[in-house]
Amino acid sequence: MERLRLGVAGLGRAFSLMLPTFLADTRVQLAGACDPRGEACAQFEADFDAPAFDDIEQLARMPDIDAIYIASPHQFHAAHTRIAAKHGKHVLVEKPMALSLAECDDMIAACRDASVHLIVGHCHSFDTPYLRTRELIASGAFGDVKMIQALNYTDYLFRPRRPEELSTAEGGGAVFSQAAHQVDIVRLLAGSRATRIRAAVGKWDPARPTEGAYTATLWFEDGAFATLSYNGYAHFDSDEWTDWTGEMGQPKNPDDYGSARRKLSTVASTAEEARLKAAGTYGGKAYAAPSRDRADVRQHQHFGPLIVSCERGDLRPLPDSIVVYGDERRERIALDAPAVPRREVIDELVAAVHGNAAPLHDGAWARGTLEICLAMLRSSDEQRDVLIGSD
Amino acid sequence: MERLRLGVAGLGRAFSLMLPTFLADTRVQLAGACDPRGEACAQFEADFDAPAFDDIEQLARMPDIDAIYIASPHQFHAAHTRIAAKHGKHVLVEKPMALSLAECDDMIAACRDASVHLIVGHCHSFDTPYLRTRELIASGAFGDVKMIQALNYTDYLFRPRRPEELSTAEGGGAVFSQAAHQVDIVRLLAGSRATRIRAAVGKWDPARPTEGAYTATLWFEDGAFATLSYNGYAHFDSDEWTDWTGEMGQPKNPDDYGSARRKLSTVASTAEEARLKAAGTYGGKAYAAPSRDRADVRQHQHFGPLIVSCERGDLRPLPDSIVVYGDERRERIALDAPAVPRREVIDELVAAVHGNAAPLHDGAWARGTLEICLAMLRSSDEQRDVLIGSD
Ligand SMILES: NC(=O)c1ccc[n+]([C@@H]2O[C@H](COP(=O)([O-])OP(=O)(O)OC[C@H]3O[C@@H](n4cnc5c(N)ncnc54)[C@H](O)[C@@H]3O)[C@@H](O)[C@H]2O)c1
Ligand SMILES: NC(=O)c1ccc[n+]([C@@H]2O[C@H](COP(=O)([O-])OP(=O)(O)OC[C@H]3O[C@@H](n4cnc5c(N)ncnc54)[C@H](O)[C@@H]3O)[C@@H](O)[C@H]2O)c1
Repeated sequence: MERLRLGVAGLGRAFSLMLPTFLADTRVQLAGACDPRGEACAQFEADFDAPAFDDIEQLARMPDIDAIYIASPHQFHAAHTRIAAKHGKHVLVEKPMALSLAECDDMIAACRDASVHLIVGHCHSFDTPYLRTRELIASGAFGDVKMIQALNYTDYLFRPRRPEELSTAEGGGAVFSQAAHQVDIVRLLAGSRATRIRAAVGKWDPARPTEGAYTATLWFEDGAFATLSYNGYAHFDSDEWTDWTGEMGQPKNPDDYGSARRKLSTVASTAEEARLKAAGTYGGKAYAAPSRDRADVRQHQHFGPLIVSCERGDLRPLPDSIVVYGDERRERIALDAPAVPRREVIDELVAAVHGNAAPLHDGAWARGTLEICLAMLRSSDEQRDVLIGSD
Repeated sequence: MERLRLGVAGLGRAFSLMLPTFLADTRVQLAGACDPRGEACAQFEADFDAPAFDDIEQLARMPDIDAIYIASPHQFHAAHTRIAAKHGKHVLVEKPMALSLAECDDMIAACRDASVHLIVGHCHSFDTPYLRTRELIASGAFGDVKMIQALNYTDYLFRPRRPEELSTAEGGGAVFSQAAHQVDIVRLLAGSRATRIRAAVGKWDPARPTEGAYTATLWFEDGAFATLSYNGYAHFDSDEWTDWTGEMGQPKNPDDYGSARRKLSTVASTAEEARLKAAGTYGGKAYAAPSRDRADVRQHQHFGPLIVSCERGDLRPLPDSIVVYGDERRERIALDAPAVPRREVIDELVAAVHGNAAPLHDGAWARGTLEICLAMLRSSDEQRDVLIGSD
């Protein structure tokens, strides 16, 4: 089977997190890129012997590219999707899909009109433990989903950021970036349409004036409800409840406490912070290429402790297994270690492009997640329930 | 110092859980009791060489009793408090304080008019790890409380019950019985007045038609918010996140999976279930007296995983310590093992009676907790925020 030829728009942190996947998955090949950062383009050309431009138009015009992975900052997702679609390229666009529902509608229309697929990801709802838990639920063996508990305590807000990542109006903060994962996972597991949400957000650091935390209750059409909590202010680390396996499936050293805050405290300005972020990413001075030896990744990625309670059992997806707490007994379903991290993204992309299966994470699906994230902000602001799917 | 002479109204499960405390704490002495169950009265008279009546009036009339511990079913708390107060006895009444705010007002007035103290407990907010966490917060070292996460997954709904414990209208279910603990703990740690709540309750077992689960967001006057989740439908056990220490501070065997459900499945009728509950409690055929050797209790009691996030640190009360996750480092503050379980209840009672300190868990305080529990039920029912303290 021919390799899918992939162009990349935005060679930053998201790309560097997907790079191990692209390197290890023989179904795809990196065939071009674009990024305004010259050093990233230079490294791309050297690494892949393929062209890198400073602008997406040129990339999209390349005739021998099948799809574009859009990993530019949120605010470009809609425009970049339109450009890719216009040139007949399939689109894999990073989460969050966009900043407004109007943008989502526009992206969906553009891809439909161009007859190209639109897939939104990577998102942690692609992680095998969640997809397999969803299958277990769909089997009916445990009855209806009744309650989902999802929480995550991380150092999100103290990782180096671009200025717009700290401004909610520009798509910054934990709701746009992190609820995008958590809401997507919870919706996928609930298997019913979300109907209303009530949320509270936390904006507690005047130096980083965007949401670093939230809590939300989400109701579903079939009567189930979910609790979603996130705290990105970096003290308690909930990976402790995932056997010290980190978000990327990596073993985590509990004694490496407070490093994100410590590192950030050496930074003097927002410009220096943005440079620090860029330096650590692809093409940057402090960038460390992923080792091609995958021996260090033994577990699946995850997005924090999560329990799905069904009528006849609770299901708990973990990086190496799913624990099934049934009425009579508890059972651990071991999961094969991932051969390639985030392989599920390529599975879905390739299946869609080859016409084998409609994507799960398509535009309409991801629009639903953004709608809930926007409703979280509104609910917190207006201090009331916000109805979903009824605007 | 003279021992406080205590009468007990209701010699059931609550009493049997307090009995180790009464036996080990030399500041109190059991001087009388009442219970309609003859076998419980007989055992009390034999164990303590003190009278036991079938009615609280007779107990309350005993001249040499200082205080009455009211551990009868919820629906009697108000009437029993009135009777105790009328006879000039201090009152220690079990949680929940009562079934309505009107009852609470009545209890508060009766005790005030009689110049006796009214303390509501045991409640897990008496547990030393929470009280010490509250002191750490009050020290100001961590700044304001911003977010609290409290959750608990237990086998609550499958423990043997009296019929009214499975009927919400009669005070049954997880909101009256379990939120009474969780809300009290969260309020105590928040240290600010609760202003509104939004909740969802789960009533999922038609054979046990009351709330077995809930989730709630609680807002405080100073802007903090809390997430409270409870699932008493017994699959996942959150004591796993408390190092397998159970609610009573006891070591728990993770392999003892599903025992509550299994035991209950052998019961044929609600009457048989009520008999099973009584048989396992004080005076019953299957009752096991507490060992006077306290070597088996090495940890404090608790009510599930809980994290308080402050501006400059997260605090995590555990059965043997408080973990302080600060901006720079993580520290474990070891707590002395409890010499006597639930000793904190006697501390507060004795301090109040001897005029040394006003009780923390007084009637006004506990009324506030019941108000929030009632608002949880209403919020879920009416699908909206319910304001607190404004009726
Ligand atoms: N799924 C995940 O795990 C994950 C992780 C990180 C980021 N993301 C998402 O990826 C996107 C990018 O975030 P990031 O953290 O990688 O940011 P980043 O700043 O590290 O990378 C963005 C890259 O895009 C480049 N860029 C800027 N404008 C561009 C343009 N007009 N055309 C092409 N490239 C442009 C930047 O120079 C930079 O190299 C965001 O939407 C974010 O939500 C997803
Ligand atoms: N703090 C805790 O950990 C805890 C634990 C269990 C129960 N409780 C509380 O204790 C109270 C009792 O619950 P329980 O589980 O012990 O129930 P239970 O049925 O085990 O005990 C109640 C006892 O009261 C007796 N009784 C009934 N009517 C009475 C009356 N009119 N006068 C005197 N005694 C009477 C019953 O015969 C029984 O012995 C409830 O309010 C409950 O919420 C608290």
